[in-house]
Amino acid sequence: MRLRVFSLYVRLTPLSDTILPPVSSKVLKNMIEKGVILSSMKPLIESRAKLKPIFISNLGISENKRLFSTGNKELVVKAGKTLYGRIGAVFDGNMENVFSDTSEIETPYGKFRYEIDRLEFTEIGSKLNISKDSNIKITFMTPTLLSSKMYLPPSLADKYKEIDVGFSLLPTPGLIAAAAYRTYYGAIGNANKPEVNTRAFKLNVLVNSFTRVINYELKPVTIVLGNDEKGNLRKSRGVIGWIEFDIVHDKFRDALLKYLNVARFLGIGRSRGIGLGEISIVGTRKIQSS
Amino acid sequence: MRLRVFSLYVRLTPLSDTILPPVSSKVLKNMIEKGVILSSMKPLIESRAKLKPIFISNLGISENKRLFSTGNKELVVKAGKTLYGRIGAVFDGNMENVFSDTSEIETPYGKFRYEIDRLEFTEIGSKLNISKDSNIKITFMTPTLLSSKMYLPPSLADKYKEIDVGFSLLPTPGLIAAAAYRTYYGAIGNANKPEVNTRAFKLNVLVNSFTRVINYELKPVTIVLGNDEKGNLRKSRGVIGWIEFDIVHDKFRDALLKYLNVARFLGIGRSRGIGLGEISIVGTRKIQSS
Repeated sequence: MRLRVFSLYVRLTPLSDTILPPVSSKVLKNMIEKGVILSSMKPLIESRAKLKPIFISNLGISENKRLFSTGNKELVVKAGKTLYGRIGAVFDGNMENVFSDTSEIETPYGKFRYEIDRLEFTEIGSKLNISKDSNIKITFMTPTLLSSKMYLPPSLADKYKEIDVGFSLLPTPGLIAAAAYRTYYGAIGNANKPEVNTRAFKLNVLVNSFTRVINYELKPVTIVLGNDEKGNLRKSRGVIGWIEFDIVHDKFRDALLKYLNVARFLGIGRSRGIGLGEISIVGTRKIQSS
Repeated sequence: MRLRVFSLYVRLTPLSDTILPPVSSKVLKNMIEKGVILSSMKPLIESRAKLKPIFISNLGISENKRLFSTGNKELVVKAGKTLYGRIGAVFDGNMENVFSDTSEIETPYGKFRYEIDRLEFTEIGSKLNISKDSNIKITFMTPTLLSSKMYLPPSLADKYKEIDVGFSLLPTPGLIAAAAYRTYYGAIGNANKPEVNTRAFKLNVLVNSFTRVINYELKPVTIVLGNDEKGNLRKSRGVIGWIEFDIVHDKFRDALLKYLNVARFLGIGRSRGIGLGEISIVGTRKIQSS
């Protein structure tokens, strides 16, 4: 069987007024941890492996408008208001636990009605279908954390492994490509091979070399991740918005579309397991400029 | 004598209502071309050499607010309204022609009163003074054109020299560093040495690797450059706004501050000779994040 990834789209409706956690993906995560839905994914969620091939979205007021906290304002949701969520993972052929035994699920954030909307699949290795007369537009639906270290040549990685640089916040097409490539390799189970870093680095450099940026609306945002064990507020800083670009080199364009095809299910960058780095991708018509 | 660059800050006041050209730097450029001011720079302006060490600003309603056309709206200026301009170049010890013989100068855009405000200097090779407990904030006062090809490894430059990629529009700190380095080498007269491209490439990759981006407000803009010989409207697309970042590697931070020290006089990227890529640089206090 060919390797596939899937997205399970669900609806959650709180039965009473509720305050969501700052990272609202915790509601779905809690359901998996308790074994009520997708219990086969529990070990993956608890694992500390890198590039884990799982994505648990934040809840949204629609499939594209996710809820997450950027400050002190609480995420209050009224009883009966439908919220939308998504879980992305590698498809192992076993879907038995997708359907919960019960349609009402108890969580630390209150009781929710749980409904499945649909399952979407794609084959890993197939290319996202955006024709060459279109630009590529990528929307960052949730804060996306792209490490500056993805620019570092792998030959220097050991020398500087103790330095914590942080995030770039400027999602260059090269950085997006490197991150999508890492997601892709996480999905096919080869994330720890040393050549992955070498290829990701080359992809980063060369995609940036051959890309004309057309337009963007990007905004750095601070996201509240909740409290750590000591009770300190944990935050991170990522980017939301969109970027539209054109890659003038067919080989790298095709490579990017192959990796993006997986990344639209599993996200890009850090903390995809809690719903950061969720992206959507469309082709946009090229306008001839003078 | 140590090599220096200078900025000549001038004030131009139109004696009657006027419509400025879409790229308002043409007013100052016309005065130099006619030999009324800074006539020693005429050959440099007319030369087609790369990385020419000259910057002629667009005119501004202040020294920081430049006027340029992003569409069909004309740049109308009332009689008596003071406009601010700047010319940056390498200082050759000869300043005799700074002071125009006449204080009223005729141009194709009307007659202007010409006054000198001040001259500023810096030594090439000295470092912009921003302490390590500050972040670096760079403001793009006019559309800045940073070529995507600055990401291309020099070993591949020949292979792809026919491909016109275009501009990146995302001013990553690495791309800024590579562009400022090229400006610097233009100023010391070594712009055509092959190692300049190699070093610019390494600087691009490594500055990006060691930089945490803190914040930005950036906006792609289309700028009208006027008509070409055939009467077609020429446009280009660059970025304006600001970016604030921190470089965690002292060696690259110091290198960047050395190149930026020249770039604040001569600009970065393409079309500096007509006032694009004008930047200002300040240190901003670091805020401890949790």
